[in-house]
Amino acid sequence: MINIALLGFGTIGSGTAEVLKVNAEACKAKAGDEINVKYILDLRDFPDSEFGDRVVHDYDVIVNDPEVKVVVEMMGGSHPAYEFSVAALKAGKSVVTSNKEVVANFGCELLALAKENNVRYLFEASVGGGIPIIRAMTESLAGNEICEINGILNGTTNYILTQMKTYGKTMAEALKEAQEKGYAEANPDADILGIDACRKICILSALAFGELVASDLVMTKGITEITTEDVEKAEANGQAIKLVARAAKTPEGKLYMAVSPVAVNNDNPLSTVNDVFNAVLVRGNTLGDVMFYGAGAGSLPTASAVVADIIDICRCLGNQPEQQQWTKSENVTSEMTAEMAADYAKRVGTPLC
Amino acid sequence: MINIALLGFGTIGSGTAEVLKVNAEACKAKAGDEINVKYILDLRDFPDSEFGDRVVHDYDVIVNDPEVKVVVEMMGGSHPAYEFSVAALKAGKSVVTSNKEVVANFGCELLALAKENNVRYLFEASVGGGIPIIRAMTESLAGNEICEINGILNGTTNYILTQMKTYGKTMAEALKEAQEKGYAEANPDADILGIDACRKICILSALAFGELVASDLVMTKGITEITTEDVEKAEANGQAIKLVARAAKTPEGKLYMAVSPVAVNNDNPLSTVNDVFNAVLVRGNTLGDVMFYGAGAGSLPTASAVVADIIDICRCLGNQPEQQQWTKSENVTSEMTAEMAADYAKRVGTPLC
Repeated sequence: MINIALLGFGTIGSGTAEVLKVNAEACKAKAGDEINVKYILDLRDFPDSEFGDRVVHDYDVIVNDPEVKVVVEMMGGSHPAYEFSVAALKAGKSVVTSNKEVVANFGCELLALAKENNVRYLFEASVGGGIPIIRAMTESLAGNEICEINGILNGTTNYILTQMKTYGKTMAEALKEAQEKGYAEANPDADILGIDACRKICILSALAFGELVASDLVMTKGITEITTEDVEKAEANGQAIKLVARAAKTPEGKLYMAVSPVAVNNDNPLSTVNDVFNAVLVRGNTLGDVMFYGAGAGSLPTASAVVADIIDICRCLGNQPEQQQWTKSENVTSEMTAEMAADYAKRVGTPLC
Repeated sequence: MINIALLGFGTIGSGTAEVLKVNAEACKAKAGDEINVKYILDLRDFPDSEFGDRVVHDYDVIVNDPEVKVVVEMMGGSHPAYEFSVAALKAGKSVVTSNKEVVANFGCELLALAKENNVRYLFEASVGGGIPIIRAMTESLAGNEICEINGILNGTTNYILTQMKTYGKTMAEALKEAQEKGYAEANPDADILGIDACRKICILSALAFGELVASDLVMTKGITEITTEDVEKAEANGQAIKLVARAAKTPEGKLYMAVSPVAVNNDNPLSTVNDVFNAVLVRGNTLGDVMFYGAGAGSLPTASAVVADIIDICRCLGNQPEQQQWTKSENVTSEMTAEMAADYAKRVGTPLC
């Protein structure tokens, strides 16, 4: 039996407990042993949950229990999620997280600390919900130099843009509907201003190029200024407007990074990614384009990604493979060269700013 | 330095040598050591190739060299590819293959033999060219029970159907054009009769369900009877005809497997997969739908998948993780239950036979 602890029992935390239970047999077969949720850390109690008896309120109980091999951080926000992750890694426990903010802010430190302690820091669920994009970039595309990444990484904005295109709705109408359906928060700024997508492209870019750029250095423009006229004009041009987060290497060796609406050419597969779905188009130097598509959010899809990471660690207990390390970088530009821009316009589309 | 041997120096073999050379730095970083092509087995000589000095004509040289850790089989056809793979595994060498015929015919035996000898048998390139579908199903979707797979697994037929839809071409015209462009062989039967797609779905189904079904037990119908009228009728119904290879578990625990044209609903992401591209739509019980899209063939994309497998083995030399084992199964049906069919029609589309 392999004991793990969940930090946070909200949407993703409870989904993770659920996936581990529903798919217990598959998980055991893949992990090589039964996975047991020994503790759940939350401020609240859950007397009505079947997992209620695992709830603790004191993190020290978890950190000091040598039986706990994996700590799964699903708290959201930078603090105390970062400090709890540090403590777990220092105690020789691998950490799995769905928390893009912590990975984008502290990925370099946490990966170094994991290496120092012969454990791993995995974050498949931090980008693209259930889409296995992190593992694909780490392992499957290992034989490639990655040249460019284009991602539809935020489901809320993609839903709004799809509604505007398909039903001619205004931005305000589509946002209101997204809020009613629970796709957008009461305060939707992190989504519609592109902040969420920006954190995610920082993580993908670090995986591709080994350099983590702070998200506030990345030119980020959301969808708030997109009008129905813009959408119609794009359609007339054989394009569809999408919020595209992008990263590439410039010929001078800088990182080009930007988040903004792009009029995507209809023959590019990103143009047909609709509603709350996410997709990441990765271009490798020998592979060409591959695209990964799926539900970018939601309790069970995201929890599935968390569980894949837990299983990966359980399979390698005592002998974790070494992870890629990241360095911090400020070597970033929001300008493509003229040659890059011409090539991008042909293959992908036209950035609207 | 890790020594490997390539069996076959055709399209994929020479592509693999090329990817290992062009991306030598990335490969070394990921593999933990330099990867050296010590031998290339081929009947021919290649005096003009920079790899010409590695060519040998006697397989015993490779099998008997303890320095060779990985044998990469890219010969095509069942024999002697199968016998060569057996010999390598018995000699304690891991085997990487792009040969779908061998995996579909002898996967059970070869996986068992690999386990017995503490090595691995990897075959990422056998399905979907450069698309990392095998690794995704093995690792990334590990926390899921896979319910259903729908794949556009043959680029030639997808090109023909795309030409028929987009330009109103007849089957004969589109096939001729595919042959002129090198997308279809002079004898195109393996593609257009669905045989190639069938072998691939047998492999994906074995990964999902642990049971390998012989391809001649799978109902397989190609695209030869599709007319321009069929294509137009589908379009009028909001559908696009695709050759879809499919596998699912029936409520009675049988495997449902079939390869045939399907009128795919326009809101299903498979409907927009055009030209020679491949895509695999995987449905997990907690994950929902994820789709993997990319070039399903071609020298460098396929070689990229081969190289990812080589790197994976090199990373774990002396300590290969255990692989899933397959059992042979005849527990297969080509009939969906009425309930499955109704659900499939809504989510995916209408099989045309």
